[in-house]
Amino acid sequence: MARQESLRTSECPVARTLESIGERWCLMIIREAFDNVRRFSEFQKNLGLAKNILASRLKLLVDIGVFEVCPASDGSAYREYVLTEKGRSIFPIVVAMRQWGERFMFDEGEVHSVLFDNVDGQPIQPLEVRSANGNQLEPTDCYRQRVISGKQELLL
Amino acid sequence: MARQESLRTSECPVARTLESIGERWCLMIIREAFDNVRRFSEFQKNLGLAKNILASRLKLLVDIGVFEVCPASDGSAYREYVLTEKGRSIFPIVVAMRQWGERFMFDEGEVHSVLFDNVDGQPIQPLEVRSANGNQLEPTDCYRQRVISGKQELLL
Repeated sequence: MARQESLRTSECPVARTLESIGERWCLMIIREAFDNVRRFSEFQKNLGLAKNILASRLKLLVDIGVFEVCPASDGSAYREYVLTEKGRSIFPIVVAMRQWGERFMFDEGEVHSVLFDNVDGQPIQPLEVRSANGNQLEPTDCYRQRVISGKQELLL
Repeated sequence: MARQESLRTSECPVARTLESIGERWCLMIIREAFDNVRRFSEFQKNLGLAKNILASRLKLLVDIGVFEVCPASDGSAYREYVLTEKGRSIFPIVVAMRQWGERFMFDEGEVHSVLFDNVDGQPIQPLEVRSANGNQLEPTDCYRQRVISGKQELLL
């Protein structure tokens, strides 16, 4: 509990993100949702996850506003888990994980998936951290500063 | 084990990334390293983590090549954990988590940290997923395709 409390109330947005959606299966469920999976049975089939674990993770993701529960789009009695704006905004996190994995987690000749865009059919660009004027930044090019949310007023 | 095995051998790079560095404390340790933390005692002080847990996570991160262990930069007897290229390349993942957290995990008026760049002192750009020709992409603008690593040869 001490650990979770400290991440949840941290001034560091990385810590709060990890505390809310940082569990591995949560991010795998969200990855499925980016592939248009919406139903409990589909999540279960694709992830091979125990029903009780899947149910608890989906409840958590609904509670924190990543999914909303909607009637089935085909008019059947099923419920569907649909990403909210907060949920869709997780896309860069999942893409960053994907691109790191593509680069470092496969041997030459191993099969893996790559993201392409629908319009031109080309692989998407690598995500790069850039300054306001467009320069590519390494970790040592950046510093952290405390601000008040919403106002961006500097405290230090 | 079934779960870990399935993530480790998945064709999905997101799954392999989550399996290797997706544990919350691993990513918090890496975040500290991006702030130039290098020593066991500093990680422990900043994260408030039990020594045995910190030691196991650091060992894992060395074993998978995210850190290398080096003699202390000041010539003392301490060992330092220094990010490798593989480790430094985790930067976009941590920045994506930071920016999602900044946007969704703080109430108006709450204090949090923001990343600025050293040169112009401005907040860094939001990470955006873009196509090869620069268009911003939503999840529904993309599709996954299987390729062979290193060759980008399409299988499907």
